[in-house]
Amino acid sequence: MALKTADEYLDSIRARKLTVFYRGEPMDSVVDHPVAKAAADCVADVYSAALDESLAPLMTRTSPLVDEVVNASNILWRSRDDLLNRVEWERAVGRRTGRGALRSPGLDAINSLAIVTQQCDQAKGTEYHQRLLAFIERVQREDLAVSGAMTDVRGDRSKRPGEQADPDMFVRVVKQDADGIYLRGAKAHQTSAVHCHEHVVLPMTCGPDETEYAVACAVASDTPGITHIFSRQPSDSRRAEGAPLDVGLPAFAGCESLMIFEDVFVPHERVFLCGEAEYTQELVRYFGSFHRFCYGGCKVGIADVVIGAASLIAEANGVRNKSAVRNKLTEMVHLNETMYACGVAAAAKGWQTSAGTFSPDIGLANVTKLNVTRFPFEIARLAADIAGGAMLTLPSQADLDHPELGAHVRKYMAGNPSVPTQQRMALFRLLEFLTHGSGAVYFLHESLHGAGAPEAMRIILRREVDLSPFETAARNLLAGA
Amino acid sequence: MALKTADEYLDSIRARKLTVFYRGEPMDSVVDHPVAKAAADCVADVYSAALDESLAPLMTRTSPLVDEVVNASNILWRSRDDLLNRVEWERAVGRRTGRGALRSPGLDAINSLAIVTQQCDQAKGTEYHQRLLAFIERVQREDLAVSGAMTDVRGDRSKRPGEQADPDMFVRVVKQDADGIYLRGAKAHQTSAVHCHEHVVLPMTCGPDETEYAVACAVASDTPGITHIFSRQPSDSRRAEGAPLDVGLPAFAGCESLMIFEDVFVPHERVFLCGEAEYTQELVRYFGSFHRFCYGGCKVGIADVVIGAASLIAEANGVRNKSAVRNKLTEMVHLNETMYACGVAAAAKGWQTSAGTFSPDIGLANVTKLNVTRFPFEIARLAADIAGGAMLTLPSQADLDHPELGAHVRKYMAGNPSVPTQQRMALFRLLEFLTHGSGAVYFLHESLHGAGAPEAMRIILRREVDLSPFETAARNLLAGA
Amino acid sequence: MALKTADEYLDSIRARKLTVFYRGEPMDSVVDHPVAKAAADCVADVYSAALDESLAPLMTRTSPLVDEVVNASNILWRSRDDLLNRVEWERAVGRRTGRGALRSPGLDAINSLAIVTQQCDQAKGTEYHQRLLAFIERVQREDLAVSGAMTDVRGDRSKRPGEQADPDMFVRVVKQDADGIYLRGAKAHQTSAVHCHEHVVLPMTCGPDETEYAVACAVASDTPGITHIFSRQPSDSRRAEGAPLDVGLPAFAGCESLMIFEDVFVPHERVFLCGEAEYTQELVRYFGSFHRFCYGGCKVGIADVVIGAASLIAEANGVRNKSAVRNKLTEMVHLNETMYACGVAAAAKGWQTSAGTFSPDIGLANVTKLNVTRFPFEIARLAADIAGGAMLTLPSQADLDHPELGAHVRKYMAGNPSVPTQQRMALFRLLEFLTHGSGAVYFLHESLHGAGAPEAMRIILRREVDLSPFETAARNLLAGA
Amino acid sequence: MALKTADEYLDSIRARKLTVFYRGEPMDSVVDHPVAKAAADCVADVYSAALDESLAPLMTRTSPLVDEVVNASNILWRSRDDLLNRVEWERAVGRRTGRGALRSPGLDAINSLAIVTQQCDQAKGTEYHQRLLAFIERVQREDLAVSGAMTDVRGDRSKRPGEQADPDMFVRVVKQDADGIYLRGAKAHQTSAVHCHEHVVLPMTCGPDETEYAVACAVASDTPGITHIFSRQPSDSRRAEGAPLDVGLPAFAGCESLMIFEDVFVPHERVFLCGEAEYTQELVRYFGSFHRFCYGGCKVGIADVVIGAASLIAEANGVRNKSAVRNKLTEMVHLNETMYACGVAAAAKGWQTSAGTFSPDIGLANVTKLNVTRFPFEIARLAADIAGGAMLTLPSQADLDHPELGAHVRKYMAGNPSVPTQQRMALFRLLEFLTHGSGAVYFLHESLHGAGAPEAMRIILRREVDLSPFETAARNLLAGA
Repeated sequence: MALKTADEYLDSIRARKLTVFYRGEPMDSVVDHPVAKAAADCVADVYSAALDESLAPLMTRTSPLVDEVVNASNILWRSRDDLLNRVEWERAVGRRTGRGALRSPGLDAINSLAIVTQQCDQAKGTEYHQRLLAFIERVQREDLAVSGAMTDVRGDRSKRPGEQADPDMFVRVVKQDADGIYLRGAKAHQTSAVHCHEHVVLPMTCGPDETEYAVACAVASDTPGITHIFSRQPSDSRRAEGAPLDVGLPAFAGCESLMIFEDVFVPHERVFLCGEAEYTQELVRYFGSFHRFCYGGCKVGIADVVIGAASLIAEANGVRNKSAVRNKLTEMVHLNETMYACGVAAAAKGWQTSAGTFSPDIGLANVTKLNVTRFPFEIARLAADIAGGAMLTLPSQADLDHPELGAHVRKYMAGNPSVPTQQRMALFRLLEFLTHGSGAVYFLHESLHGAGAPEAMRIILRREVDLSPFETAARNLLAGA
Repeated sequence: MALKTADEYLDSIRARKLTVFYRGEPMDSVVDHPVAKAAADCVADVYSAALDESLAPLMTRTSPLVDEVVNASNILWRSRDDLLNRVEWERAVGRRTGRGALRSPGLDAINSLAIVTQQCDQAKGTEYHQRLLAFIERVQREDLAVSGAMTDVRGDRSKRPGEQADPDMFVRVVKQDADGIYLRGAKAHQTSAVHCHEHVVLPMTCGPDETEYAVACAVASDTPGITHIFSRQPSDSRRAEGAPLDVGLPAFAGCESLMIFEDVFVPHERVFLCGEAEYTQELVRYFGSFHRFCYGGCKVGIADVVIGAASLIAEANGVRNKSAVRNKLTEMVHLNETMYACGVAAAAKGWQTSAGTFSPDIGLANVTKLNVTRFPFEIARLAADIAGGAMLTLPSQADLDHPELGAHVRKYMAGNPSVPTQQRMALFRLLEFLTHGSGAVYFLHESLHGAGAPEAMRIILRREVDLSPFETAARNLLAGA
Repeated sequence: MALKTADEYLDSIRARKLTVFYRGEPMDSVVDHPVAKAAADCVADVYSAALDESLAPLMTRTSPLVDEVVNASNILWRSRDDLLNRVEWERAVGRRTGRGALRSPGLDAINSLAIVTQQCDQAKGTEYHQRLLAFIERVQREDLAVSGAMTDVRGDRSKRPGEQADPDMFVRVVKQDADGIYLRGAKAHQTSAVHCHEHVVLPMTCGPDETEYAVACAVASDTPGITHIFSRQPSDSRRAEGAPLDVGLPAFAGCESLMIFEDVFVPHERVFLCGEAEYTQELVRYFGSFHRFCYGGCKVGIADVVIGAASLIAEANGVRNKSAVRNKLTEMVHLNETMYACGVAAAAKGWQTSAGTFSPDIGLANVTKLNVTRFPFEIARLAADIAGGAMLTLPSQADLDHPELGAHVRKYMAGNPSVPTQQRMALFRLLEFLTHGSGAVYFLHESLHGAGAPEAMRIILRREVDLSPFETAARNLLAGA
Repeated sequence: MALKTADEYLDSIRARKLTVFYRGEPMDSVVDHPVAKAAADCVADVYSAALDESLAPLMTRTSPLVDEVVNASNILWRSRDDLLNRVEWERAVGRRTGRGALRSPGLDAINSLAIVTQQCDQAKGTEYHQRLLAFIERVQREDLAVSGAMTDVRGDRSKRPGEQADPDMFVRVVKQDADGIYLRGAKAHQTSAVHCHEHVVLPMTCGPDETEYAVACAVASDTPGITHIFSRQPSDSRRAEGAPLDVGLPAFAGCESLMIFEDVFVPHERVFLCGEAEYTQELVRYFGSFHRFCYGGCKVGIADVVIGAASLIAEANGVRNKSAVRNKLTEMVHLNETMYACGVAAAAKGWQTSAGTFSPDIGLANVTKLNVTRFPFEIARLAADIAGGAMLTLPSQADLDHPELGAHVRKYMAGNPSVPTQQRMALFRLLEFLTHGSGAVYFLHESLHGAGAPEAMRIILRREVDLSPFETAARNLLAGA
């Protein structure tokens, strides 16, 4: 069984030499630094979950590639059940961590590459698919965490890669030699990239005269020439203060970084596309749609926590049985289950690709995500409505722990006497974290922009959903038809 | 193969003696009367579709009960595929007819009774399940159209059956004898009941002191004592004017009636519940949820027609390529596919009942319907937005056909020269029909109230969706947890 | 006092010879024809209201032009109070009639022309303003009903007037001579035009090479060469059946017609713009914005009736005190008062034009209307939600009046015993009329398209609302600013 | 002229001895402490604005009480113009500061007390009104900043003041003597209370047996026995880091505190209500509605900044002219102007109270606020949509200022070359501040809960908006009416 424990995973990341800066200072350890630790623990949780008896049926699969049980984050999907299963484990991990399954982008990267490399090889006689399978085999055997490095910094967004003032606004191949290729550029807001063993670099859509940008490859995280600038998030520095109550969700978190490539060398056997610009649109379409689909599990799981917290706060405020509160909770559940239903449906209408793997329905995957760009915001608003004003105006843990002030805080922050005041405060802070703190980066902002902004879904829907059968249906019913 | 042709079906209904009134006059033939004909043809279409080669895989199933191919409207669901399939054929029929599959309530009636009769028999030693199977067998063999007669008129809605001023506000058993039972009361707005061979009467939820109301049974449509008052619908009389252009959708329609029972006799072998009030809530819950689930196909199919018509009108107006129009069409598609996704997900998360049949996920079935109470209204608004003012202010067919006026109409109702003016007018009338004419009864009003008003879904969601796992998830993540 | 009674008004219209067709037949009297009568009575109501003691302070003003008390539908606005007052009387008339104040388009026509003719005269030495004042003087003295004839049929909407295959898709001057001008073309869906004494013809926005389309003038309704094709509306023919219960709102209605000009002669003294294409955009902007602003009263008044009917139905159903019902009514009130507030604010921020008249705030006028394109649809949906399924599936009046069936109808359509069954039925029909019958043409469809589709408001908002002060505000607050 | 300069104001606050704790430590100076300074400067800005020539006409009024020019934050409203003016200056200050006019709660406190004290005095022979006028006179002459201390901590929210386990969950009078009264309890999240000279304490609604809670009075901010616990806000500690870029809006902010009263003495001449429980509901209704009304200016002004920042980011991203972006900006403007229109309308429909002062329309004030509980959230979502992913994942100022990293940041955070990269970063941070940082406490959370949660508006609307005229209107139009 090719499964690392959480500790083995954390040690394996500790062992890597990375160049990471946070607020202008080198971050010595991305595993133990107070601002990064919870994010590392969140990746580690995907390892733990695979070894958890109750979750193992969701979190693991036997891979025919290596004939071993591997983490479901690293498989090629071989059935509709694999897809349905993914929605379930994404939701489970989202619900466990309040953040989500941080190995997902890599999963989408290998599955989208599997399709496109097979197509490219067949048409052009390249050997990318075989290289990819070899890479996946190693990833499965060693149970590696893989990031999907897609989003370029993009500079002036009205301009294509080749039109930018600075040609490095999209990651590109600046040199090729007998041994491999050299990458320059930067990938923006790379989720948990500092906590991954491998990065799968993917291109944006390229035109025929932009072949230098048409590159996909795997890069080991400790390859020389990679620098991370670790992002600031709302209230991030609270994690360094030693007051977990103020953090809200002390155990888990996400992180992202600006990942800069300064002429990074990648050997040929790790290259999965290089110059075949005509395949980039398909690759982007698959990668984006796969990742959009997974939000029907992942963000739903976070929303489960938001709903649970809102319900507990209602209890702590003494109003859980009021019909106005119950109506709001029901609406939150309704919106959340709608997102989930879209993810499930995209899986249930999945289909087998020419590579033998399975893809969720592309249209429904985008429908899923378009709802995800809207509903978490309304769920967050309703949670804040239920919570009341104290959610963002609480005294601090230091006030609570203060020898004299503490009595004031305990007296005046008390609600329903059957709920301990400290728990009531912790609930407010959890909701603050998820909707206005660094958790909001994932529950709200990533819901909006992860795997593309709403406009990207609309463009796909326009392309994927052919209106002509609807028009034919209408025409058939007309008077005189 | 136990499948009637459409003509055989229509003849079989023509042969029945029914008591039906429309606008104070007896309706001689519910098949041939100009106001009822299109609704009869719509039921007939479900027969045609089963014999249509391309649709047969959706519309038919081999039933183990009779070991024959039967219409999918009459089966007990035996797998998740049966459920997924249902969403598909509901959508297909909705799209073919602009109205929907009118044998669906009967389908939900037999499937909900299958579960509850099995439970009742097991607990109480009754023999309802066997009787039901015998009934279904006959229905399958003879390919009968079955209505689901659930909704009582209910009088004062703040009062329970037993509290009403008039005890007949809910259908009840007024007498029992050795041969059978006698029903009195009325069922409100019974969809296509006049076009069905059999009515399956179902109870509302009853309390332990309301056993006379706890009755389920099958009643042949020509049983003495049944009177139908056929409903008026918006613009219904246009069908009697001989101007199909003004009708909008001349081929198909729906209809409903107030179905009155005056001490109607039902033999014991057709009775599936009688006095076991404790089973009525479950029965209502299953029947309602099954029917709510199907709207994720049926109403989606009608919306396909609305979207198609809106797109064609945009073409006829010369603006199909404007980005504002395309954005609206994309939003309509998005909302529609969201409803569809919910139906698919309810099926994909289906489960096997104690009766051996399959049920869709009850929570997701209600989520489906709650979206259906909202999105068709926005789809209709967007369609009207695209169509423009002429949709509700068109000259009539008589104006178009008039020897002199006709030239004016053709000249001034012209739009994009590549679309014939008469087609443009027919498109406006089709949209008028679906959103403000008698089609709106189904696309909008039934979407709101069919199988229960939005409040009913909320109540089920409150009951079905247990918040405690969400609360546990939140509690696990609290500081100090 | 220059005020006609309702009967004087109706007689004055009866006396006119008009060419009007309905369903291919000449309509002998637009006042007495069963399908047109209620619409005539609705215009008449604006006359009655002006003579009603309690409404006179709203409905009348002393005009300095004629130094007499005149109907507020015919004044030039001379203060913010005139504007605020307009919102109030529009709401009052909407609430009285369920339809609205049918002389409003003429009011907007004279007020927009007052500004633009003054500007044109000043710049170009024309004498349009004086002609307009003379026209208004006569209109005030004789208390005439004036229509605003703006919307051309427009043919292919992607093409400008001069680009159409048929040059008559926009009304144009086909000939000029010493006495006057000759108009050809058609105006689409002209609200109550058949019930007006005068039409003020207005142009759409024209380019410099489209001067033949740049025409504004007053045309007496009985001028030779004008033909009306009376529109069909949902359920329109119920008014001819003699069953007022089925009509829903028997007393009042709206109507519109396709008004065709076959080389209609207009003497010069009635021409207010002819060829000055550069003024058409301003004219359209003012006319459109003035009319949009008035919807903050007019549609609000209809919504008052919808809300009142929904509340009474809730009572008739026995559920007026349920919190779910009260929440829906409160939301309906909230949405409605928001539309009203926008109209009031547009008036309160009014300003004096260069012609000395007052204009509402143009931005807020468009904000008003953009809300009106949305909220009535949600109000209608909530009303239908409260009403329940019977709203569109009622037995007819003939069923109720039938010697035998009547007893069934009275028994089974009964609700709350304290509300007569016939009143309950009348309430359902009133809501049917307003949301799915011919009243929906005004409450919903005109709300969407009257005075321009939502896109038109967005275009104005983009133009009127300068973002640069907002950008300056943001820039001032930046770090380092 | 009784107007302080900003510096005079700041010095006057510096001079006061207050007991304030932040994160368990005494806050030495609420003016100069890095976390509190920007909030003090925001109050100071209301002083500056009154002396700013261009704003003085909005920000000041001549008060008949003192016959001097005073700050508009301290007046009794004497006309509809005073009310309209208030909407304007609230918006102006919101737009200047991104936070709002922090002396507003005191303004609402004195205006609501003016009405209720006059009523109480007249009915009961008390002399509260005179005391209040004397207080206002001093406040005007000395140009004092006054807080409105309304919101009690409330404990178990299902319980009334007298039912709580701890009687101090609502501020109450624990003792009275010849000189005055003694207050115990705490007021929750008191906006800028630490920066005010005076607190006007107001009661929640009390029952006849809860007279000890029915207390209104003025308390000087440095009265012994008052302790503030200063709230933590999202990202609050960034202000102490010395990196203004990371703060987002370095110049201004808000703050609030839990304000605890430990048997605080208040002399009788400062008491405005004491035991007259029957007046508390009216007082709450007026105070709440006045404050709700002002959000139609204040929150609109903040939204102006959000819209401006979004537009500038679109420019910095190179996409300001894309139609998708312009549509979103137009929708943001539309929503914002709708809130503004509601505030203006509430003012325009203002009326004179029995105290001679003016009140905005209570219904429309609550309609204003109910929209404010919704639209800022959608405006924030649309702003985030336009901004893109970088808004919450930016490198820090330290990274930008770093000798080596800085080049990377400048290279890869560049967008449209005509916008400096640092300005682009500052724009992201400004939006982060306003929607997820401590600015979100005001733009979003206070919009939801300030002056009461949405439920409070709904309750008022149910009470204030009498449905019976709507019902009468519907009844008048019924068939047979």
